[in-house]
Amino acid sequence: MSKNEKQFVEEITPMEVDFPQWYTDVILKTDLVDYAPVKGFMVVKPYGYAIWENIQQFLDKRFKETGHKNCYFPLLIPESLLTKEAEHIEGFAPEVAWVTHGGNKKLEERLCIRPTSETIICNMYAKWLKSYRDLPYLYNQWCSVVRWEKSTRPFLRTCEFLWQEGHTLHETSEEAQDETIQMLNIYQELCEELLAMPVISGQKSESEKFAGGERTYTIEALMHDGKALQSGTSHFLGQHFTKAFDITFADRNSKLAHPYHTSWGVTTRLIGGIIMTHGDNRGLILPPRVAPTQVVIIPIAAKKGNVMEKVDELFESLKAKGIRVEVDDRDNYSTGWKLNEWEMKGVPVRIEIGPKDIENNQATIFRRDLLEKNAMSLENIEEGIVDLLENIHDTMLEKAREHREKHTYQVDNMDEFKRAITETPGFVKAMWCGDAECEAKVKEDTGATIRCMPFEQENLGDKCFCCGKEAKHMVYIAKAY
Amino acid sequence: MSKNEKQFVEEITPMEVDFPQWYTDVILKTDLVDYAPVKGFMVVKPYGYAIWENIQQFLDKRFKETGHKNCYFPLLIPESLLTKEAEHIEGFAPEVAWVTHGGNKKLEERLCIRPTSETIICNMYAKWLKSYRDLPYLYNQWCSVVRWEKSTRPFLRTCEFLWQEGHTLHETSEEAQDETIQMLNIYQELCEELLAMPVISGQKSESEKFAGGERTYTIEALMHDGKALQSGTSHFLGQHFTKAFDITFADRNSKLAHPYHTSWGVTTRLIGGIIMTHGDNRGLILPPRVAPTQVVIIPIAAKKGNVMEKVDELFESLKAKGIRVEVDDRDNYSTGWKLNEWEMKGVPVRIEIGPKDIENNQATIFRRDLLEKNAMSLENIEEGIVDLLENIHDTMLEKAREHREKHTYQVDNMDEFKRAITETPGFVKAMWCGDAECEAKVKEDTGATIRCMPFEQENLGDKCFCCGKEAKHMVYIAKAY
Repeated sequence: MSKNEKQFVEEITPMEVDFPQWYTDVILKTDLVDYAPVKGFMVVKPYGYAIWENIQQFLDKRFKETGHKNCYFPLLIPESLLTKEAEHIEGFAPEVAWVTHGGNKKLEERLCIRPTSETIICNMYAKWLKSYRDLPYLYNQWCSVVRWEKSTRPFLRTCEFLWQEGHTLHETSEEAQDETIQMLNIYQELCEELLAMPVISGQKSESEKFAGGERTYTIEALMHDGKALQSGTSHFLGQHFTKAFDITFADRNSKLAHPYHTSWGVTTRLIGGIIMTHGDNRGLILPPRVAPTQVVIIPIAAKKGNVMEKVDELFESLKAKGIRVEVDDRDNYSTGWKLNEWEMKGVPVRIEIGPKDIENNQATIFRRDLLEKNAMSLENIEEGIVDLLENIHDTMLEKAREHREKHTYQVDNMDEFKRAITETPGFVKAMWCGDAECEAKVKEDTGATIRCMPFEQENLGDKCFCCGKEAKHMVYIAKAY
Repeated sequence: MSKNEKQFVEEITPMEVDFPQWYTDVILKTDLVDYAPVKGFMVVKPYGYAIWENIQQFLDKRFKETGHKNCYFPLLIPESLLTKEAEHIEGFAPEVAWVTHGGNKKLEERLCIRPTSETIICNMYAKWLKSYRDLPYLYNQWCSVVRWEKSTRPFLRTCEFLWQEGHTLHETSEEAQDETIQMLNIYQELCEELLAMPVISGQKSESEKFAGGERTYTIEALMHDGKALQSGTSHFLGQHFTKAFDITFADRNSKLAHPYHTSWGVTTRLIGGIIMTHGDNRGLILPPRVAPTQVVIIPIAAKKGNVMEKVDELFESLKAKGIRVEVDDRDNYSTGWKLNEWEMKGVPVRIEIGPKDIENNQATIFRRDLLEKNAMSLENIEEGIVDLLENIHDTMLEKAREHREKHTYQVDNMDEFKRAITETPGFVKAMWCGDAECEAKVKEDTGATIRCMPFEQENLGDKCFCCGKEAKHMVYIAKAY
């Protein structure tokens, strides 16, 4: 290890020593994010924001392909609207920010900054909807929301975060249910196809569902440290809000009916998920499809012979292939420093080209995920790089799957459960009776929560691991972010 | 005029009768926007938001081509930061919204919702910037801002609006000045190339410049009613904020220096500009390049023969050409109703296909801007439609230019000026001494303001039209939104 390399590595706390500190070191040193002057808020820096833009692009395309349109609802919600749905206000009131003054005048009614937009959107839908012919309403918005969290961590839990929130209305319960699942499936695709982050999809328990909803579906990922990350949720809201907000339409028999309602969202939290699924002690490892820079070219002995000529040629040909490529031709940093910096920033592929490489009509290729260095012929190198990026994606997804399988434990009773959850952090699979009491006991005793009742139910036995009564669901349990 | 047509037209107040009411009728009836429950706020509906998405796409591409990156700074700014730059707080304090409570607790310091982000961004830049090698900082963010306006109109002036705000730092004053002008030029391109909306670009007077800046540049468009619309601004901020926020860097001589600073933005107000530049008494006329739907196909006698087959064929081939096309095959509306609805919504081209058209191997083409109906052969119709859309863009831009020229008046003295500004609403060109006194007098006497000192100065004489003293600048004056 060179002196430069040492310096870099020493700047990042090893994850085995202190995982939270590793996370903080990585996000700050790689310029993804910074702390804002107000506690709990974050600044998403260009490198972090570019990841978010790639997530947005993937999702926005899929939303539009499935018939959704974007719109924009106001930031501020009158208190009287927020409080219309009883369970909803109970869930959100403790964590909203209140605007009391506008333009130096005290407001007649307090306004909250949206923590989520069901209430204001339902207020508008009630005004707009007339007939079954207008349905479905398939709308989404990209925005930020504010929730006054006490304990925050950039990306994972912040007082303000960026997200998208879809809000749809349907004629029938079945259509709304189908929409709820369709959008959850799109989130799963996003995680697996773009972020190389495997997820388990399933339904939340009653106590973990959305405040004011009927059923919440979730995708859950497992992080390096064995903690789960809820990575996206899709809610079947039934008629809870449409009744509370008196949204009606003339149905096919010309009778007034309440539509069925869904909402679904993912947030900048996903960026935290990428970091904690793939990163290592050298820093980030970004999945190629979401990486802002997929390939960086480092000229070696740039002033010699035709090095820069070859570098520029390669840059142009990779760009023409649609690859997000950069050349690092800074002359005020040593090559060693640059190599380490790009490793830390998690760029999937590094290409080094120097006089010797050119002599041999090759380039030196470094793949960040496996830390492997190989020569690649300059002949048809573009195809080689495209294939390599795909291979890196598949390898990273597979590696994350293996990690999850290796850290998933099956238990039959509370003793086994407590041992597993404390000694071997990860997912615990168990059979559950479905009672909130058992769920509460698990949480109280261990801090772990039922993450979901997965769609892929396995029969692990017929008794609840907690109370021994008849089991109804197979569940995944974990400590979670 | 059919009964259907009458109904539609009667729903929109003629602009000659009541221009503000015409505007309100158009934006509400065409589903661009709606009023939110909080006074002064708006809901941007899908049809309006799709226009904004096209504006975003054009600009974001140009921003990135010119080296800018996106990021995200927090929504909330501590009062102590907002007040750091004296002129800035004076300009913005009267119109900010204050958050006083977060999660049921009173905050120690009030937070304002960003009215613009110079202060919070400068606070971060001060933390980040180290060396001249880090410069320039070329960052932009897409977000909404809140300004507590007393008198509001959807898109034109609202308490919350969507915008982008660029914030850049530079080593030298010259570079910052170049950036300021470069971004103004991109805004001009946007208006003319995408929105078919001609603008006059120039510099704002001292009294109209950005609060805390050094020089403000603007693009000004002329609306149907002869009022001007400030359509985008780019500010050279000098070192006002970088000194107030103590942003320094080690320069090429290793001495600490303050960088030079710019900011620039356009907003959803541009959508108001499109409406008031191009619309007529039948509703919207959308410029083709920004129109969410560029072509709508209406099947005539859809159940007869192979009408729907031809319609689907045409739909697919236009889509393949990259045209944003829709088929209106709703069977619960009459053809007359549909034709009128699409006219009102301003879709640039309507194609009707019925059995007779098919017999003659043609389609009936209606162009919204000229209200002209012509037959077009189905042979190579795709190329014909592409050309037609380009022609419509050019025609609309030219027509708007002619309208502006026709409503631009030259004056030599206050009598002429007052007559022009009251009797013939439009731009008034005049020579000005540069004194704030004359500017204030003009505003007080007529409500009109100096819109800009255009880059293209014309020599109209040597005396100020107001005071008769030596003239320094040729200016455009108008009543404005």
